[in-house]
This record gives sequence, C-alpha cells and structure tokens, in this order.
Amino acid sequence: MSAPHAADAVRDPGDLTAAQARALFRGGLDTDTIGWAGRHAQANLVAVPRSAAYDLLLFAQRNPQACPLLDVTEVGGTATALAEGADLRTDLPAYYVWRDGEIAERVTDATDHWREDMVAFLVGCSLTFELALMEAGVPVRHIEEGVIDPMYVTNRPTRAAGALSGPLVVSMRPIPAHLVTTAVRITDRYPDVHGAPVHVGDPAALGIADLSRPDFGDAVTVGDDVPAFWACGVTTQAAITASRLEYAVTHVPGRMFVTDVPHSAYMR
Amino acid sequence: MSAPHAADAVRDPGDLTAAQARALFRGGLDTDTIGWAGRHAQANLVAVPRSAAYDLLLFAQRNPQACPLLDVTEVGGTATALAEGADLRTDLPAYYVWRDGEIAERVTDATDHWREDMVAFLVGCSLTFELALMEAGVPVRHIEEGVIDPMYVTNRPTRAAGALSGPLVVSMRPIPAHLVTTAVRITDRYPDVHGAPVHVGDPAALGIADLSRPDFGDAVTVGDDVPAFWACGVTTQAAITASRLEYAVTHVPGRMFVTDVPHSAYMR
Repeated sequence: MSAPHAADAVRDPGDLTAAQARALFRGGLDTDTIGWAGRHAQANLVAVPRSAAYDLLLFAQRNPQACPLLDVTEVGGTATALAEGADLRTDLPAYYVWRDGEIAERVTDATDHWREDMVAFLVGCSLTFELALMEAGVPVRHIEEGVIDPMYVTNRPTRAAGALSGPLVVSMRPIPAHLVTTAVRITDRYPDVHGAPVHVGDPAALGIADLSRPDFGDAVTVGDDVPAFWACGVTTQAAITASRLEYAVTHVPGRMFVTDVPHSAYMR
Repeated sequence: MSAPHAADAVRDPGDLTAAQARALFRGGLDTDTIGWAGRHAQANLVAVPRSAAYDLLLFAQRNPQACPLLDVTEVGGTATALAEGADLRTDLPAYYVWRDGEIAERVTDATDHWREDMVAFLVGCSLTFELALMEAGVPVRHIEEGVIDPMYVTNRPTRAAGALSGPLVVSMRPIPAHLVTTAVRITDRYPDVHGAPVHVGDPAALGIADLSRPDFGDAVTVGDDVPAFWACGVTTQAAITASRLEYAVTHVPGRMFVTDVPHSAYMR
C-alpha cells in the first residue's frame, strides 16, 4: 500500500500507520486526529524556550496526573523517541503560538516558530484511556455526543514550580453509577495518560458551580450519571497563561501528535 | 512518650516516629537507617547546583526506573513535601560531598556544604518494596545475610540527558524459582521505588560476568535461586561520576532520609 497523499484518499484513517498519518499532517492536512492511526497513542505538545523548560519539567514532576510526560526533547531538537523519523515542527495538523501567555497565532507548520532553544514536552492524552473505557463497556459521553469533553477550572491549586502555578483543571465524564468502579479501575491502569479520577461526584467540592457551563470544551448530558473528574492537560496551558509565559508553541486541542507507541504500552 | 535524645535511649528504632528519627540524626547520630521509623518510606538524596538540576531532572524523566523522583526542592530550599519541618542539610545521618564526580568528603551535617543554589532530589529507595517482599514470603537475601545488596554495572546504557549519561546499574536479589512471579508482581506495585525487575535470570545478557564480584555492595549467596535484577539508584551516582559533575551532596549509602510518608502511599 502506498502512502495516501490527501485526506480524500483516506477511507478509514484509523487504519493508517502512525507514519502515514503524520505524513498527511506534514503535508498540510488540518483535521482532528481523534480516531487516526487507531492503535497508537496520541500526545499533547507543549514546546517552550530552554529558559522556561526547567520550570515546566518541575511542574510536571510535581503534578504528574495533570502533566504526565511521555517524552522531552533535546534543546532545539525536533525528534522524539515516541515516533521514528517524526519532526515535531511539522507533523501535527495545527499549532498555537503563544506570546505572554496568550494565543497569538494558529499555524499548520511551526518551523518558522521553532526557536533554536525550544524544548518540546509530549504529554499523555486521555484518548488512550477513553478507548479502554469504551472497550470495557463504559460510555464516554462526549464521544457519543460528538463534542469536546467538558473541562472545568477547580478550586484546587497545583503545586507551583518556579514561575508556573495555577488551578487544577479537570475533564468530566458522566459515568453510570454501577460502572464507576470499572471506570476508576480501568483508568488507574493508565498513569501516563492522567490515570484514575481525582474526584468522583459532588462538583461543588471542586468549586464547580454548574456542570452545564464548562470553562473549556462543551457541555454534555449528565442525567442520573455520576460526574467523574480527571486531571486534565489544560492545567499546564492554564499555568502558562497565569504566568504570562513569554513564548510557547502547543498543539491545537483535538489536533494531537500521533505517536508510534501502541496504547497498550501505557497500560500498567 | 518523650522524644529519645540519644541512640542508647532507643530500644526499637522501628517504633520511633519519623520526626523522632530525624531529630536524632540532626543531633549527630551517624548510623544506618534501615529499620528506623519502620512504617515510613526512606529516600535517597542527590543535591546539585541549579546549573546541573535541569540535566538531573531530565535524566530522571528519561530513566524513571533507575531514578524515581519522590520530590524536588526549591532552588536553595532545605524543606521537602515528604516530611514536615525537616531540614535536608542536617536530618540525614551522613552525607558525601562530591567534587568533579568523586567523593571528596564525608560529613554528618551538610549545612556548610549546601550552596545557596542547591536543588535537592529525593529518590525512591527499594527498602519499601523489600519490606513488601518479605511480608509476601519472598526472602531478601542481603537482609538475611546482613550485608549491602550487590550491585552491578550493566552493558545497558541509560538514556542520556545533557551532561549526564552512563550505564544502567542494577541491584540483584536471588529469588527461589517458584517465587519469581510473586517477586515481580509485588515490586511492580511500587513504581516510585524502582518497580519491577528490569531483567530476570541470565546475568551474562546484562554483561555481568560473575555474580560473586559485584561492582558495589556485597556478594550474597545465590545457590539454585534465580538472580533478579532491579534498576538501582546508584545509576544516578554513576552518571554523576561519568560526567565529572562539578559539585553534589548525596546521602551515604544505607544512611537515608526518613520521610513522613507511609510505605503504603507508594503502592499502586
């Protein structure tokens, strides 16, 4: 099979190899990566100048559920141990360029924005445990409803690291009461992609007043289900914003880096 | 019960609180910590100047089995989240001061050696899983024989981080064949204290020619048992030596930092 050259050549993107998917994105295809190269884990990207990298590395060490590191590149490097031959500047569908903690630009090729002292952090993504939940018969509401998962700023602080601090941000998935144990058990097996919930039930205890009004993402139907809350990668972006970090390049939500690593490699 | 003031007041050091044990070491008591404040995890200490801290933090991220971080202090800090009121400069029984990658001095109080830009790394210690092994009926030979566990330099490289690189160093415990599964299962539950073995059986495959001649620690009786090999914290000291790191302060082997954290907190 030859590598597909355009999105319309792709019948089932889940059947692509990870390298084929990355080649399409490198070629300029700007699409959601969910379901692409389906057996492979995807990663969030946060790249910062070397001057900010120590704080970010320490922030991740101190807040591993919110910021589980899958890989950290060399200073100025564009390669990662997670994907043979990949170039992190080009192989994601789209990037945000951040200045002073705010999104300044959206690009599909970050080559011109990759300062020579950039350090890229690849952060675990909950997609891996969501697939495992669905395989175990636990519904994932935002996938069922075709929207982005709802995320909320909590009243729980992260543990600060240098200039980086801020509240814990959580994602919420409504779980039928008889499946809460299963949901905890399954996600606990994936500590590198946020692991088990940090909180189950009682949004008010996290300072969340209204589940129908998430701070990021979309509201989903909760009904009689129990809201379960997982530490979320947006925590790191919230800290970057709070610290007015001078410069960063990240993935655009939903447009992640497709790694060569099978989901199962992150299962304990 | 009032806090004991000297070693000879201590009938069973395992019954002390962690704070009581630390107070004795702060007072100058220079003794092995194994078995002290028995319910509490102990940690290895590696403190380096801020200029070397990024490389060490990245080395730990890239080699988590060899260098599992329990805490990293603020620059110049002497406090840790692992122990209320502790002072890392004084609360260990003894310290090595390293210059250019070599041990230059042994002290019982590191206050005068704690440069103002020091960053301390507290690293998980296998004592926690050794207690769990013994509780599960798996013999721990070096404890039975009253010696230091045998450690070997392997032919497996670590993943380098900046100036830090070097071979993986492993500790070896001979396990009766019918208990190998149990030993793997138990230690796998403790990823923060080196986790499961990196290798079971066949020392030659790791480049170890003779089990009776360890590179560090003491030889133990192997007999018909299966040698099992765990990633070892000495890996980090080997990398410090290989990189001729300008300055570091570490614990003296066997004289660890007694934390307030119960062993069970590190069990997954």
